[in-house]
Amino acid sequence: MSAPKQAVDLLVLGASELATPTGSAPRAGAAMGEVRVVPRGAVAIERERIVAVGPQEDLVARFAPRSTLDARGGTLVPGFVDAHTHPVFATTREDEFELRTKGATYVEIAAAGGGILSTVRGVRAASRELLLERLLVHLERFLALGTTTVECKSGYGLTLDDEVKCLEVIAEARLRQPIELVPTFLGAHDFPAEFRARKPEYVELVCSTMLPRVAQGKLAEYCDVFTEGIAFSLDDSRRILERARSLGLGLRLHVDQLTPLGGAELAAELGAASADHLEHVSERGIDALRAAGVVPVLCPVVPLFLRQEREAPGRRLVDAGLPVAVSTDFNPGSCNLQSLPEVMSWAALRYRMSAAECLTAATLNAACSLGRGGEIGTLEVGKRADVLVLDVPNHRHLVYELGRSPVRTVVVRGRVVHSRA
Amino acid sequence: MSAPKQAVDLLVLGASELATPTGSAPRAGAAMGEVRVVPRGAVAIERERIVAVGPQEDLVARFAPRSTLDARGGTLVPGFVDAHTHPVFATTREDEFELRTKGATYVEIAAAGGGILSTVRGVRAASRELLLERLLVHLERFLALGTTTVECKSGYGLTLDDEVKCLEVIAEARLRQPIELVPTFLGAHDFPAEFRARKPEYVELVCSTMLPRVAQGKLAEYCDVFTEGIAFSLDDSRRILERARSLGLGLRLHVDQLTPLGGAELAAELGAASADHLEHVSERGIDALRAAGVVPVLCPVVPLFLRQEREAPGRRLVDAGLPVAVSTDFNPGSCNLQSLPEVMSWAALRYRMSAAECLTAATLNAACSLGRGGEIGTLEVGKRADVLVLDVPNHRHLVYELGRSPVRTVVVRGRVVHSRA
Repeated sequence: MSAPKQAVDLLVLGASELATPTGSAPRAGAAMGEVRVVPRGAVAIERERIVAVGPQEDLVARFAPRSTLDARGGTLVPGFVDAHTHPVFATTREDEFELRTKGATYVEIAAAGGGILSTVRGVRAASRELLLERLLVHLERFLALGTTTVECKSGYGLTLDDEVKCLEVIAEARLRQPIELVPTFLGAHDFPAEFRARKPEYVELVCSTMLPRVAQGKLAEYCDVFTEGIAFSLDDSRRILERARSLGLGLRLHVDQLTPLGGAELAAELGAASADHLEHVSERGIDALRAAGVVPVLCPVVPLFLRQEREAPGRRLVDAGLPVAVSTDFNPGSCNLQSLPEVMSWAALRYRMSAAECLTAATLNAACSLGRGGEIGTLEVGKRADVLVLDVPNHRHLVYELGRSPVRTVVVRGRVVHSRA
Repeated sequence: MSAPKQAVDLLVLGASELATPTGSAPRAGAAMGEVRVVPRGAVAIERERIVAVGPQEDLVARFAPRSTLDARGGTLVPGFVDAHTHPVFATTREDEFELRTKGATYVEIAAAGGGILSTVRGVRAASRELLLERLLVHLERFLALGTTTVECKSGYGLTLDDEVKCLEVIAEARLRQPIELVPTFLGAHDFPAEFRARKPEYVELVCSTMLPRVAQGKLAEYCDVFTEGIAFSLDDSRRILERARSLGLGLRLHVDQLTPLGGAELAAELGAASADHLEHVSERGIDALRAAGVVPVLCPVVPLFLRQEREAPGRRLVDAGLPVAVSTDFNPGSCNLQSLPEVMSWAALRYRMSAAECLTAATLNAACSLGRGGEIGTLEVGKRADVLVLDVPNHRHLVYELGRSPVRTVVVRGRVVHSRA
């Protein structure tokens, strides 16, 4: 007589393949490509947690599910994790997109009053209700595209009140929909117009007023700075980030995007969780990131969207033994894109990363950059049950198909929260 | 007393904008960017036809609709027309995609038995039923992405029976779903393995056996040839296409894609409907195409997908006064992509085309290349009622957003045939 079956809430069955990175720590270098692939793999879920992953025959023999989800020959992967987005804004910038196709550069557009400051005007003028409504639309689209955890930056307010408004809108949105949101304070996104002639005063405002308010209200987990020639210098960035660290915030940095400023070295020096962009990272910067255990969060579509020639050395970073993550950088100016499958395809095409490397980059490594490697990012026993059903026969189709989302069903914390017709 | 209102089947209301090219002839050069934009535009439809287009207030005053479709602040555009696809296949080539990210070229992969001939093996082995099932899946995806007319090539059979099988599958699919299909015979896609040592015999087979059978059975409207160093020479191409023309078929050509062979000049000489790809087109070729009134059908994502440096001179072709069309080139090898919105974005980014130029390229000009400029491709009185509702506030978002389909509702011949949740 066989043992009685264990009751579980949900069994995800009928897949042609299950593919997942493994572990709770960032996967670096060659290990990025070593994902676990289970033909006809299935997942058993009890409450919010994964209780078993393996061949369907084994799980069917062991578990008595209260309900099942039929993957209909599709592929199961972990929910995607987007570690770099700017989703709180009220106005769009399609005009700048068209100006760039006519030859204007990002820096020229910013100098003419466009760029980040254009979005800042829109956010300052917008009510809390309007910002929340727009953010919820963005989150609904993220969810349909399979993203189950999203890092959300402020950074289009640039006054105490407007930055707090944006972070409170993120906090409100956390309660209204299934995606887990990780709030990041980016008051040092740019110098607002009214401080252009007195930049040190703005740095002071960020350090002495904004950061304490953010920390005291527990409005953000991370502090980010746009470290760049046209934005915050290395010294300004260091000052802001050290202050943030002393207040208990984790650190993320926009570095070496438009010019080789040495931001990667600063991220390493400060022990940041992530160093993002890295189009112009130096060999010294790469060594420093590896030594310090910083996760490089790359945004492969941004230079394409901005029509810039220089792209991040993605393949080089993987080969150098770094745990690369990829993200959308969703924002209305430099990358109007929410799809991580699309990002994975372009990481494959532009960085020459394999499908397995891209999957690790958009799940486990991104989760680790957000301090959540133990909780999400893989399909393994004990992790939160964030599971996607893709309408493709294997995980290599994640990079092989462009321009269409393969995500058919999204499970978050064990519940089906999105299902395509 | 006001005049009584005219009864119509359907009024599409509630849009923030309606945008459409105008006319029935290809729009060339500067005229490509001159689309008609109607703020709060609406469309009145009776049976399969558009009976009025204009500001919503005007149409509401004139018409008594039997039903309405609420665009909820979205944008109305004509159904997209994809003038170059290879959608009849049974097997996928994700392995080759990964080989290319490791450095292999398209030509190397073809020489090693991959490439087109790999798909040919799959099609020959596949039953008619399987091919139809796969084609219907592809068409369902095209429709959801807003494509309401699709040119469909054979070309993965390369025997009389297998080419006829593919064309008959297309004919069957025409009856099973709402997209209008335009069948093209592409028996000269490549030399099949069994004719590699006796290529003249394959050209003879195409001319003497395949083409007469295709023409007699009315299985195709067009004949296409892959005119290329690794495929059919200029002389072979001319012979096949002249034979096709004498049998009443229109002509389309794959030209100057991988090498500058002078295929554009051949397309002009033969009076082809379209000359497709054109990555290596010469200035002489451009002049010849313009003089002959050939529509250049560009495939902007293909070189990106193949990791090839050379891209078609899209901006140059528009500026030279040609009526450029854009297409997906959907196929399992060189472009696994079905989304024309995605193609428009990349045409904007890589060719520096404006949103209006891209819209004209993916609707009217593509329709004209298929001999249907009088029937589809614009929102105008008398044209077939193929209308899209996009979930964006204006047509410039068509190029400004990547990685997500903006298509919310698809109307074909006056009926709602797809609607997203």
